[in-house]
Amino acid sequence: MAQINHHFQKLKAGYLFPEIARRVNAFADAHADAEVIKMGIGDVTEPLPAAIVQAMHVAVDEMGSRDTFRGYGPEQGYEFLRTAIVEGSYAGMGIAADEVFVSDGSKCDSGNILDIFGIGNRIAITDPVYPVYVDTNVMAGNTGDANAQGKYDGLLYLPVTEENNFVPEIPDQEVDLIYLCYPNNPTGTVVGKEVLQQWVEYARSHGAIILYDAAYEAFITEEGIPHSIYEIEGAHSCAIEFRSFSKNAGFTGTRCGFTVVPKQLMGIDDAGKEVSIHALWNRRQATKFNGVSYPVQAGAAAAYGQQGKAEIAELVAFYLKNAQLLKQGLESLGIRVFGGVNAPYVWLKTPGGASSWEFFDLLLEKTHLVGTPGSGFGAAGEGYFRLSAFNSRANIEESVERLKKFLQ
Amino acid sequence: MAQINHHFQKLKAGYLFPEIARRVNAFADAHADAEVIKMGIGDVTEPLPAAIVQAMHVAVDEMGSRDTFRGYGPEQGYEFLRTAIVEGSYAGMGIAADEVFVSDGSKCDSGNILDIFGIGNRIAITDPVYPVYVDTNVMAGNTGDANAQGKYDGLLYLPVTEENNFVPEIPDQEVDLIYLCYPNNPTGTVVGKEVLQQWVEYARSHGAIILYDAAYEAFITEEGIPHSIYEIEGAHSCAIEFRSFSKNAGFTGTRCGFTVVPKQLMGIDDAGKEVSIHALWNRRQATKFNGVSYPVQAGAAAAYGQQGKAEIAELVAFYLKNAQLLKQGLESLGIRVFGGVNAPYVWLKTPGGASSWEFFDLLLEKTHLVGTPGSGFGAAGEGYFRLSAFNSRANIEESVERLKKFLQ
Repeated sequence: MAQINHHFQKLKAGYLFPEIARRVNAFADAHADAEVIKMGIGDVTEPLPAAIVQAMHVAVDEMGSRDTFRGYGPEQGYEFLRTAIVEGSYAGMGIAADEVFVSDGSKCDSGNILDIFGIGNRIAITDPVYPVYVDTNVMAGNTGDANAQGKYDGLLYLPVTEENNFVPEIPDQEVDLIYLCYPNNPTGTVVGKEVLQQWVEYARSHGAIILYDAAYEAFITEEGIPHSIYEIEGAHSCAIEFRSFSKNAGFTGTRCGFTVVPKQLMGIDDAGKEVSIHALWNRRQATKFNGVSYPVQAGAAAAYGQQGKAEIAELVAFYLKNAQLLKQGLESLGIRVFGGVNAPYVWLKTPGGASSWEFFDLLLEKTHLVGTPGSGFGAAGEGYFRLSAFNSRANIEESVERLKKFLQ
Repeated sequence: MAQINHHFQKLKAGYLFPEIARRVNAFADAHADAEVIKMGIGDVTEPLPAAIVQAMHVAVDEMGSRDTFRGYGPEQGYEFLRTAIVEGSYAGMGIAADEVFVSDGSKCDSGNILDIFGIGNRIAITDPVYPVYVDTNVMAGNTGDANAQGKYDGLLYLPVTEENNFVPEIPDQEVDLIYLCYPNNPTGTVVGKEVLQQWVEYARSHGAIILYDAAYEAFITEEGIPHSIYEIEGAHSCAIEFRSFSKNAGFTGTRCGFTVVPKQLMGIDDAGKEVSIHALWNRRQATKFNGVSYPVQAGAAAAYGQQGKAEIAELVAFYLKNAQLLKQGLESLGIRVFGGVNAPYVWLKTPGGASSWEFFDLLLEKTHLVGTPGSGFGAAGEGYFRLSAFNSRANIEESVERLKKFLQ
């Protein structure tokens, strides 16, 4: 009889965002006239930049003509895009085009990467954290069961809270895979080079691999904050980096991201022998993936053109201004706010000691605003709440007004 | 230290098509003036139908305008496409729209599906077979090592050769997951309802699940050949079906496919309790996938419109005519040929008892034609050779000429 992967049965309830959708839909059904403003999921609202639209039209036309039609592309992505990525995002960092693997999004990659790692690796994640890191490890069998708080046996949780200034402590035990995300989702915080240097040193001395999620890199505004893990000396032999066109170029519905796997990165096999992680990921992608749609890759490449870069800079500035308005509005109400400077997320302490979900329900009920409960990202997120700055200016201004009316 | 998934080390050499590419590139480097015609990979050559190009342009424009922009779509695919698929491909078969999961291709799905099944399921595949089924099971740890022939311990191989008329025998032992592909890749053969009915009965009586790959369904020309496993009574409780827009609508570079998982399909957990496969796959997709690019889904939906259907019918007829020309050309040379009637593949017995790779090298050297060695699809494919009918008419005619010159 066909046996299921019983690890799926350890997963707690739904994935966070479907649960939010469920509550919002229930509220909307009961209050048909309420104008709900959604600041929960970090989904962009502004249209694709004109340079990208234009490039996609050209590519679609190419697909419609026998002379320029493209069938199967390289599973790893087209050379033109891999080269544009290296030149546009990794200049001077010693990354080669064939170390870049184009994909349909970094959510997929950050889940699929576990295919190439063995069961039994010890996993460290920050807490709170992007739920996909946790859930994909549960599915892969890298954890035990969850406790009442939603914490899984076998994962090392590194709390990031106001108390440690949102800087995770270097573990005093051995771990093998470490998930780091900067600018951070959900807290919107960043770390400097010294902090990342310590992680690289830890990883190198323990043979660990850092899975570095830089999906929000474009939102860094402050000098001296690293945009890539490969700005850190030694990272090429201990880190994989995930990036996305979702948040900077507005690709959440267009789907393109990429993963950088340096050739010098090694894991070990059962015999303790070093094995190229690049070769394994290449094999995984060649076998289980068939490349990204050509018009989408053409659009992504346009993000690195002169016009594309300028348009994306405008988009990013637009969302960052939203974040600033949210942050200032909340702070004027005496609420403690983090993030929102180098990231499109504002992370706030719930007022009056409300739990994250209590505040979610209250906010929805009283202001018709939807945010994300901090506890949905992990136990240490309890008492926090995330607001996304991905919205129209009018909605952000309206949200601030509603918050003021409700919380003042 | 980060441990790799050691099952990857069991994989034999490269995946078949990269190996072919390697040999072809080496030949091309040494013979710069040779006009190589590639009939190896089953990759379409004709442009996207005009109805699809048009729909994609409209969708790209929608993405470029604030009012019609779409961010994250449903991980399972847009309602408009799921409904079009059900109405266009499953009318009267009792499949609901929410049983259809849209993806970026059936190669991905047929690999990823193993995420939801436990280790230890006994796997049956036909031999020869699409290599992705085998390699993804190796990666997942469902097999032992390969022997000198490339056969993996722990897989049940069901030979399909001229001797059994390319109809796999029902196993006399217990298996849990069964891969079937009709019209068949690589042999181009089909089976009737009675054969599939026997498989459904086997699966139902053993609690097994059939993974049914119908990527080439559009090429069926003969009456009475089932287009879907769900034409078979009882299949809804024992089969998953994979389909693709790659071969009918020319989407190999545009990327869209889908997987049908009926809600009544159950697997069992460690305690022997029934668990919904639909719920597991839904959870897998929601967690590790983020939906298909909106313009791509809009294009796929146009495949079901009146104009799209007519254009696709023309495309399919075009490739089938190619297949017929290849088949007739080869048969006129006294070569035994299978497939090519309900499929875009011609499967031939190598002349003179040559091994598959010997014939590959000889054909490349003497005629500058590239095909796929039958043994690359499995041990029972030894002595066979696949030619793909996906090509321009001129190339097919030229190929037949070259074959005649060489083999006559």
